[in-house]
Amino acid sequence: MDYKESGVDIDAGNEAVRRIRRLARKTFTPAVLSDIGSFGGLFRFDTARFHEPVLVSSADGVGTKLRVAFMAGRHGSVGIDLVNHCVNDILVQGAEPLFFMDYLATGHLSPETVAEVVEGIAAACLENGCALLGGETAEMPGFYAEGEYDLAGFIVGVVERGRLIDGAGIRPGDRLIGLRSSGLHTNGYSLARRILFDQLGLRVDSPVLDTTVGEALLRPHRSYLPALRPLLPTGLLKGVAHITGGGLTDNLPRMLPDGTAAEIQLGSWPVSPIFDFLRRAGRVPDADMFRTFNMGIGLVVACGEEDVEVVLREQGRAGEGAAVIGRIVRGDRRVTYTAA
Amino acid sequence: MDYKESGVDIDAGNEAVRRIRRLARKTFTPAVLSDIGSFGGLFRFDTARFHEPVLVSSADGVGTKLRVAFMAGRHGSVGIDLVNHCVNDILVQGAEPLFFMDYLATGHLSPETVAEVVEGIAAACLENGCALLGGETAEMPGFYAEGEYDLAGFIVGVVERGRLIDGAGIRPGDRLIGLRSSGLHTNGYSLARRILFDQLGLRVDSPVLDTTVGEALLRPHRSYLPALRPLLPTGLLKGVAHITGGGLTDNLPRMLPDGTAAEIQLGSWPVSPIFDFLRRAGRVPDADMFRTFNMGIGLVVACGEEDVEVVLREQGRAGEGAAVIGRIVRGDRRVTYTAA
Repeated sequence: MDYKESGVDIDAGNEAVRRIRRLARKTFTPAVLSDIGSFGGLFRFDTARFHEPVLVSSADGVGTKLRVAFMAGRHGSVGIDLVNHCVNDILVQGAEPLFFMDYLATGHLSPETVAEVVEGIAAACLENGCALLGGETAEMPGFYAEGEYDLAGFIVGVVERGRLIDGAGIRPGDRLIGLRSSGLHTNGYSLARRILFDQLGLRVDSPVLDTTVGEALLRPHRSYLPALRPLLPTGLLKGVAHITGGGLTDNLPRMLPDGTAAEIQLGSWPVSPIFDFLRRAGRVPDADMFRTFNMGIGLVVACGEEDVEVVLREQGRAGEGAAVIGRIVRGDRRVTYTAA
Repeated sequence: MDYKESGVDIDAGNEAVRRIRRLARKTFTPAVLSDIGSFGGLFRFDTARFHEPVLVSSADGVGTKLRVAFMAGRHGSVGIDLVNHCVNDILVQGAEPLFFMDYLATGHLSPETVAEVVEGIAAACLENGCALLGGETAEMPGFYAEGEYDLAGFIVGVVERGRLIDGAGIRPGDRLIGLRSSGLHTNGYSLARRILFDQLGLRVDSPVLDTTVGEALLRPHRSYLPALRPLLPTGLLKGVAHITGGGLTDNLPRMLPDGTAAEIQLGSWPVSPIFDFLRRAGRVPDADMFRTFNMGIGLVVACGEEDVEVVLREQGRAGEGAAVIGRIVRGDRRVTYTAA
């Protein structure tokens, strides 16, 4: 018996590495000193740019949104999701990305599918000015169903310590500005799939609203780096929250200091039609909707009342859909929702 | 329908985070500025220690060794495997670890299993002086069989640019020193499981050699950081290769410059009995054995002939089993094996 008979195809692995190398090289910044295929990726750290640099790192996956990609046979957008999710997770602390690594695990390696996923990853890395420094492609026979895979991403960024955004300065009276999401981003897919596919019996090519189920569900997670970058040096952003798993309800508290709470004004932003559709079709209680989905808000910024205008103007300039969606009150780090 | 009915249990996730936080805190060095649960992990980078720092990063998984952990119901050692594999992958370029992130994906989240895995991760991080800075625990209903999970790790280390180990100085006549492995480490498990479980019909508690199948297969991947650390500042290490998937055959070329090749002297080190057992039981051709398993050698160092004594003495001092296993010859970055 040899290794190939046991289900692992080293040659397919090498072919996948060749394709990944070509894609990754396009993302290389001058700081990258290594090529794909070395044991570790090498990234020259420019100490001259920083007085007291803080590395900011995050790990993320795409969750069961992957299953929609499998059903649709489209593997590029989940790569974009993965990168943008990670970019936002370090952006909320004020960091700009330096480099990204991916982990892709599958039962039987298809170099074509791997290349499609990595194309999405590389495109999003390029867009965010972030080098795809390396990664791991694992063939694990028997772990994943035919045609399926899992995907994880790791990002490293940097912020000057004095510019760290940590929410510590948030005070009652501050305003919360919400930035629009493109759809579900990467959260709530177990519930959405249950409603759309299991309960309603829809398929990825079924029409829903003005598009298909597959299109609606696969819209890529947005990166808020272009919108927020001009504001990072201003110090106006007291706190930023990425609205991921757990929705506004669980993510806003992550930026709140003790003694504060968030009051969200329902009706202050347009809830994307897909969420209304899911709520009605699945008869999902409102509390669960707001703890599961982003409800049309992908990122929330906390700033002083006096700075709202500047922040909104800057968002407008970036072509960003932004609105004041609530404010900070006294409380114990919870989120309450008030009717319009 | 709410989120829990759809198979995702946010409360179990929060319980897992609480346990992970307790374990991770023990690994925190003074450079860590964040706690587990923040969007990104924060790591103060000490610029004063470096003239021209290079960040070295790697992503890895544990592969199908995980299945042995599932069969044995033991989840701590795979966490150790994950960290040590990553530590070695950046060590071969001269880097010492700064921080680590993990990704753990499962179908149905068991906070107990998560804690057991993370205990292993945290213990190995502590041992390697590496902070467990954060990670992602994903519950993905339907992706993984009951009781199963996948695991990926991501490490960031640093090396002074002038001390980067890249193999560029390797010349014909240089010697190859092999450091012993503890067993299969994390590679070749698809083949090993096929032979032991499918062909021989053994179980994890079946006796094999002087132990059980489970014990033999779950021996943790070794970290070579303690053995190599004293040699890093000496500049004697011209190239280092971590012997992972692809064995000596595929990993030695990764450190070889053009115009060189590696000649391995069979019989120059004791091949661990588990490999002989697998070879005979599975009737695996030698070429496949050396391209699948580490064959008892977990790491290979290339150094000048004149430096062999110093390197071996330092390994002896570190309690490391090390031997000259071959040499560099002229060639096209291939590995040949010569009989004793």
